[in-house]
Amino acid sequence: MRVIFTVEYDGTDYCGWQIQDNGITVQQTMEEAHAKIFGERTRFTASGRTDSGVHAAGQVVHFDTEINVSPEGLMRGINSALPPDIRVIAARFAPEGFHARFSTKKKTYEYRAYESDVERPLKSRYAVRINTGADIEKMRAAARVFEGEHDFAALCAAGSSVKDTVRRIYSIAVDRRGDDLIFTVTGNGFLYKMVRTIAGTLLDAGYGKISSEDIADALNRAERSRLGKTMPPEGLTLVKVEYD
Amino acid sequence: MRVIFTVEYDGTDYCGWQIQDNGITVQQTMEEAHAKIFGERTRFTASGRTDSGVHAAGQVVHFDTEINVSPEGLMRGINSALPPDIRVIAARFAPEGFHARFSTKKKTYEYRAYESDVERPLKSRYAVRINTGADIEKMRAAARVFEGEHDFAALCAAGSSVKDTVRRIYSIAVDRRGDDLIFTVTGNGFLYKMVRTIAGTLLDAGYGKISSEDIADALNRAERSRLGKTMPPEGLTLVKVEYD
Repeated sequence: MRVIFTVEYDGTDYCGWQIQDNGITVQQTMEEAHAKIFGERTRFTASGRTDSGVHAAGQVVHFDTEINVSPEGLMRGINSALPPDIRVIAARFAPEGFHARFSTKKKTYEYRAYESDVERPLKSRYAVRINTGADIEKMRAAARVFEGEHDFAALCAAGSSVKDTVRRIYSIAVDRRGDDLIFTVTGNGFLYKMVRTIAGTLLDAGYGKISSEDIADALNRAERSRLGKTMPPEGLTLVKVEYD
Repeated sequence: MRVIFTVEYDGTDYCGWQIQDNGITVQQTMEEAHAKIFGERTRFTASGRTDSGVHAAGQVVHFDTEINVSPEGLMRGINSALPPDIRVIAARFAPEGFHARFSTKKKTYEYRAYESDVERPLKSRYAVRINTGADIEKMRAAARVFEGEHDFAALCAAGSSVKDTVRRIYSIAVDRRGDDLIFTVTGNGFLYKMVRTIAGTLLDAGYGKISSEDIADALNRAERSRLGKTMPPEGLTLVKVEYD
């Protein structure tokens, strides 16, 4: 049977989701915890990778199991063997034909920054320090440029092997809560580092370094160098993955 | 000259504020960072201790220095030598006769809990998991019992050597934000573990385990055992210290 887990993790100490040779990943940690408790080696498949240091509040993962235990029981079992920075927060049987990655319809990421002259120890684990003075209306206007279906080749990190760089962004909300700026981005899929580069570009727009017209033009011409920098991973959280 | 620092720290990896033999403290770390940059050994005095694992968003600290550098410069200097989980966020000259501890008029602590059936990795560094179902109006009614001037001997942790256990609590706010419950407690001073025991008692009231009348009676008779448990340190943050 196929089971779906909703997973929350603090990505600080992980080399992202996907198993690799260079360090410990969330996928590896989950597969090992499941094997330890249930004596079964099985592959855990997520809605998509998250990069090194990126967090998730609602990553969706599926796996196939022969263990005769309810999804709730599988969740309790794996949670008892996981380190405290990873937890399964919901579990259910997968509907016919479900695949955590291929069935994905929408994903929502949140990028969080805070305005301060100094680093703030109580914020810096999940947000990135930025200088004060970013204009929220300018950022909202720039966000409109990214919305809709576009070829996002300009946002494609160097070395990426993805061929189809067309994606649809349904919405980008720009909110201020106290000293925090929060960018909430929903789309049908994202290229490598795409959300972090959108965040960097919106901040440049907020500081008046780039206009909405320039952003539109850079997207059209696929000119990465005119867009903002790729913001650090600790500000990024995968908050929600939606299916039909 | 005497200088005042406002300090933010993530207390997770520290044995509290005050220097001791059993582990690294915030006070020791700050004194060593100052000595490293300015070559001066001086005592850093806080508004009060925070316990092991407790955080601060606005701890107030004073120290006397012979270094001929502005408060801003002293702040930048020490910040360059502090680990990322401690930062001075504001600096100024102390007014005549100022003492970070003895001049304190009001302190505000925040205790944060979140309602969930499972541990939540993105919340657990600064909040404590509790079961769902705590009634906010019952907690608010119980909070009224603690407000005002009382002898809080009942909340005094065993082994405490404090003689005068009378304190004034100006206000206790109980708020819900999403899954989070936040207790904001302002008083003229607090006994060891007092805020954490108030939080535990308010939660017991929220679950219907103790009534406001029982709390008042336990306070009057100084019966610690009838009050709630002392909640864990990671939910507690010293948010503000006020002076005249």
